[in-house]
Amino acid sequence: MRFDVTILGSSSATPIYNRNPSSQLLNINERHFLIDCGEGTQVQLLRNGIKNQRIEHIFISHLHGDHYLGLVGLLSSLHLNGRSKPIYLYGPPELSEILDIQFKYSQTQLRYPLVFKATQTDHTEKIFESNDVIIETFVLDHRIPCTGFKFTQKKRSRKIIKEKFDELKIPIDLIPELKRGGTFTDKKGRVYAADELTIEAPEPRSYAYCSDTLCSWGYLQDIKGVDTLYHEATFMNDMLSRAEETFHTTTLQAGEIAVKAEVKQLLIGHFSARYKELEPLLEESKSVFKNTKLAIEGHTFEI
Amino acid sequence: MRFDVTILGSSSATPIYNRNPSSQLLNINERHFLIDCGEGTQVQLLRNGIKNQRIEHIFISHLHGDHYLGLVGLLSSLHLNGRSKPIYLYGPPELSEILDIQFKYSQTQLRYPLVFKATQTDHTEKIFESNDVIIETFVLDHRIPCTGFKFTQKKRSRKIIKEKFDELKIPIDLIPELKRGGTFTDKKGRVYAADELTIEAPEPRSYAYCSDTLCSWGYLQDIKGVDTLYHEATFMNDMLSRAEETFHTTTLQAGEIAVKAEVKQLLIGHFSARYKELEPLLEESKSVFKNTKLAIEGHTFEI
Repeated sequence: MRFDVTILGSSSATPIYNRNPSSQLLNINERHFLIDCGEGTQVQLLRNGIKNQRIEHIFISHLHGDHYLGLVGLLSSLHLNGRSKPIYLYGPPELSEILDIQFKYSQTQLRYPLVFKATQTDHTEKIFESNDVIIETFVLDHRIPCTGFKFTQKKRSRKIIKEKFDELKIPIDLIPELKRGGTFTDKKGRVYAADELTIEAPEPRSYAYCSDTLCSWGYLQDIKGVDTLYHEATFMNDMLSRAEETFHTTTLQAGEIAVKAEVKQLLIGHFSARYKELEPLLEESKSVFKNTKLAIEGHTFEI
Repeated sequence: MRFDVTILGSSSATPIYNRNPSSQLLNINERHFLIDCGEGTQVQLLRNGIKNQRIEHIFISHLHGDHYLGLVGLLSSLHLNGRSKPIYLYGPPELSEILDIQFKYSQTQLRYPLVFKATQTDHTEKIFESNDVIIETFVLDHRIPCTGFKFTQKKRSRKIIKEKFDELKIPIDLIPELKRGGTFTDKKGRVYAADELTIEAPEPRSYAYCSDTLCSWGYLQDIKGVDTLYHEATFMNDMLSRAEETFHTTTLQAGEIAVKAEVKQLLIGHFSARYKELEPLLEESKSVFKNTKLAIEGHTFEI
């Protein structure tokens, strides 16, 4: 099952050096989930060959402009291009007010349902569940209310071994029972156990997105053990006091969080405009957590 | 005196084919005036090597997203980069509400004064005057209230002929009087007329910007005789009924307006996403008004 993330923006507050404000496209089993939507996200989707009409769910972490200013433009383009399927939008309660006023004055009546769910900014909450994924928010520690998002695959049922099914001529209608671990008895009375006919599905994977936050340990439990962690790393560690003042994290701290949370892979992003070259940021983070990667525009990471 | 316009966006509602939503940078005697500010304008400024801190005045024609969605991002970046000089902003009254709510929820207190002047959408009005330029709004005919902007240089005083001044040893303090057309009498009593010592300043030039409008003749008097007219030309003439439905203009009509308004140069823009190639649009407009040019990204036009 496909589970990967394409980076659309890696810049912090001001876009520079061809870096765009925050946005990521998560592909879960060919369903499209957009996380944050900074200014220019619709152009970044185009540039990366991603059809914006395939997006079903949009998640906004907080109301600093570099995380949501591309939203009205994207929603308007979906409307102008004839969308009829709903968009499910999750974000701070005030986001709906910001959208409403702009659609009111532009006299835009969206042709598709925009289903808004306000996120809670004081406790963890499950905001979405389907047959293959659970999505939860958790509380980050920023200058204004801010949530992280965790995407967890569900454990799938066992997979059939096709050759065995063909060989034993097992009727199709027995498949669901066998996937659940049932047995099969052939005409001669031989009983086949589940693990002779089916194999365990791969372990479910998980992804956590920490957009803007002070490196506090309040959310450590929420991201514990995820396969891939995206964490902001706005500054290098020589700017620690600036990071603390502005409620951001350093590259070194992001590495420490990855270690403590026992994740498998760390993606860092939200780089300050002061850094033209990003290799030093990567090196600093890797000095603590080896499997760190730069979450830069156009790169897709398997989760 | 420098008087030119650099195009930052040429697209209509949805950005496509590397075309961005509406924005233009007008340079009048090294002062920077930004006209409309679609999503991504701050990146377009960067890309064209224009320092955004040099902008003094911003004009928003109307509240369709493709004309203003880059504004909050640009104003925020100016703030984050330490601006202290004021920005003078002109646009529909509701624009201030849209900005206020977003700055409120992002807890942004701009470090510089943002001086807002609401434009009138039912009559022509002078909104700015300095020693070298007058700026007026005029009423366009769109689905929502929309204004055009006209920039007119003031007639400058006569220019001195330096060689003559040196030869006759004319005292510097007589310059203002001579520029106003006064005479000079030398020691021998010979009288020099103004046109022997000074020459007429170049004729003042003017620029009109018609962002989004039905081709109605209501604003013809307002743009009459301008040197350069920017006029939207969203569709070709085979889409005339679509243009009328959506209160837009065709390439043919833009040419006709240029003829009737007796302008010297026509720039067309705001191209629909249906046109990948723009040459046919240019040709159609030129069939009516020869001196038409495509107002595309990165091009600078002398007015």
